[in-house]
Amino acid sequence: MRTRAAVAVAAGQPLEIMEVNLEGPKWGEVLVEIKATGICHTDEFTLSGADPEGLFPAILGHEGAGVVLEVGPGVTSLKPGDHVIPLYTPECRQCPSCLSQKTNLCTAIRATQGQGLMPDGTTRFSMLDGTPIHHYMGCSTFANHTVLPEIALAKVREDAPFDKICYIGCGVTTGIGAVINTAKVEIGAKAVVFGLGGIGLNVLQGLKLAGADMIIGVDINNDRKAWGERFGMTHFVNPKEIDGSVVQHIVNLTKTPFDQIGGADYSFDCTGNVKVMRDALECTHRGWGVSVVIGVAPAGAEIATRPFQLVTGRVWKGTAFGGARGRTDVPKIVDWYMDGKIQIDPMITHTMGLEDINKGFDLMHKGESIRSVVLY
Amino acid sequence: MRTRAAVAVAAGQPLEIMEVNLEGPKWGEVLVEIKATGICHTDEFTLSGADPEGLFPAILGHEGAGVVLEVGPGVTSLKPGDHVIPLYTPECRQCPSCLSQKTNLCTAIRATQGQGLMPDGTTRFSMLDGTPIHHYMGCSTFANHTVLPEIALAKVREDAPFDKICYIGCGVTTGIGAVINTAKVEIGAKAVVFGLGGIGLNVLQGLKLAGADMIIGVDINNDRKAWGERFGMTHFVNPKEIDGSVVQHIVNLTKTPFDQIGGADYSFDCTGNVKVMRDALECTHRGWGVSVVIGVAPAGAEIATRPFQLVTGRVWKGTAFGGARGRTDVPKIVDWYMDGKIQIDPMITHTMGLEDINKGFDLMHKGESIRSVVLY
Repeated sequence: MRTRAAVAVAAGQPLEIMEVNLEGPKWGEVLVEIKATGICHTDEFTLSGADPEGLFPAILGHEGAGVVLEVGPGVTSLKPGDHVIPLYTPECRQCPSCLSQKTNLCTAIRATQGQGLMPDGTTRFSMLDGTPIHHYMGCSTFANHTVLPEIALAKVREDAPFDKICYIGCGVTTGIGAVINTAKVEIGAKAVVFGLGGIGLNVLQGLKLAGADMIIGVDINNDRKAWGERFGMTHFVNPKEIDGSVVQHIVNLTKTPFDQIGGADYSFDCTGNVKVMRDALECTHRGWGVSVVIGVAPAGAEIATRPFQLVTGRVWKGTAFGGARGRTDVPKIVDWYMDGKIQIDPMITHTMGLEDINKGFDLMHKGESIRSVVLY
Repeated sequence: MRTRAAVAVAAGQPLEIMEVNLEGPKWGEVLVEIKATGICHTDEFTLSGADPEGLFPAILGHEGAGVVLEVGPGVTSLKPGDHVIPLYTPECRQCPSCLSQKTNLCTAIRATQGQGLMPDGTTRFSMLDGTPIHHYMGCSTFANHTVLPEIALAKVREDAPFDKICYIGCGVTTGIGAVINTAKVEIGAKAVVFGLGGIGLNVLQGLKLAGADMIIGVDINNDRKAWGERFGMTHFVNPKEIDGSVVQHIVNLTKTPFDQIGGADYSFDCTGNVKVMRDALECTHRGWGVSVVIGVAPAGAEIATRPFQLVTGRVWKGTAFGGARGRTDVPKIVDWYMDGKIQIDPMITHTMGLEDINKGFDLMHKGESIRSVVLY
């Protein structure tokens, strides 16, 4: 079949809207009509050429929602008409990682996914001249139709709006999951979030959901203060407007008459800046502070600290897709949205047709959007 | 009173054996006759001048065992005749850290201890000419008699031999505690220990106690292979004698027919070398590997890695005194020794009188000793 897609033809160039060929689903695969897709910084990271593993031409996009049109042989858990969210982190439930119950990082199709291919080592997409087009993060939601492995699709309720729940495919789950799956924040905790963008705001609402007492947001853009407050932030810090270091500022802010050591119980980096990651670790509490890296750093960038920070009890960890097991956890997060436990609508600041997808990237560059969503 | 001590008069100089003045215990303090003390790398670190917080003159030593001679006013949990192990990490049970139940890093006397003083801000030791001598890590076990706060003494059973259980005051507890308190290693785990010295061997026996399946020891000194095997090591790696990187070697060693990703479930750095700390992190398993920093790094040295290591599920943490709450946990470890659950005797390779303490440091420099113990 043919479908319409925004194709990343080369690094650093705008996406090109075009008709492409799409082969039908092979064994264990599913054809999905994408109804809506968010535009995430990770798409931008790859499109810019900064991602050393970026492949071109490719159909980017990994934050979508849609409807199953057709299932290939061997598919048992999905049928045409099912509503689904594509998963860039699949959940096969059979590999050593899934069976460990200690990680969400399913490895069933890792090798081929990293090469922009379906599990059989080929692509379903091609240019009209026959040139193969790479898949991206196993999803390629910047196409109106796409093919994914069954294990990379979460089945969700049918009354949930595609144009909102697409965001659960990455940003919402990453932010909320980092709080509840990775950090396992407890009621009454003090937490700090660096970077109040499309991930950071979701970390904030995750912290509110988890019952944190003090929810500190850090951003160099003062416009984000009002945004943060909307999602549960109790304190705002602009590092450019304080005296001294942000680490010492947060340590002081979290002191109590009883606890004069100070420091956050939990911190989250949502910036991808390795210097900020260090601050995030070092502002946590001696003895038990946990810092979670969420942001994607530039290629080759390294985090560093004195080992004394760890020896005195701080823990440095990271999260991918919020530690969520997609097929199991994503449907629950859709329920939370539908039940009003979490918000999504206000974060979707812009919507557009596929033909205007490059405008969505522009809005992101300018910091004017939280999330742009493409509607097919 | 007067007592005999090995005094660190200046950085980089041998200890000087001399008579010193010792004031009796003040409020909340206890006079202890030290019967035996180990010589640890941390003493050497300070004596060498490499420790930027080192103070001179000082009476070093923090791995001792002895008998209570006299208690000051306010002391309720100890009486003359009690057998005790000094604790460089005290346990007051009343500070925010102790009450958190999330760390062993009691802060009750942290500030004064770091300044080489008793909690009232003065020293009990002085030269015969009146010059004050600093305490060290709150212990100063290189003196035949010393004064400590009550909260810095673990009361232990009286049938345990001083010349062995002194080692529980640091090395044994640090190594075993890192496994059971900090990493919380489970039965069947695969673990790797970098550096098979006085701490590393205790990590090995902690892993054996915890029921680990694969216990890999890494050391550049082949003499340590036999040592490691004595304490439960199942595989030995000399990084100088393998092809390729130690990280890849360990990843390959831990692969199974089912799990072709490979990597240790847990790793422990007992070297203090920041490059080794990085290897220790990066050789752990994608998704759930936990790496624990135990070694003390040179002043200013930093650990570094790509954040991708954390985002893909590895956890970097550290431990001080093995995460042990001294007054609570040290008596249990003494019981484990007396019950034969752990070994100490073979690790104490050399004993000497106080007059020969500098020979103990020489043996350590040459790598000839696991532990030297001074007997008073």
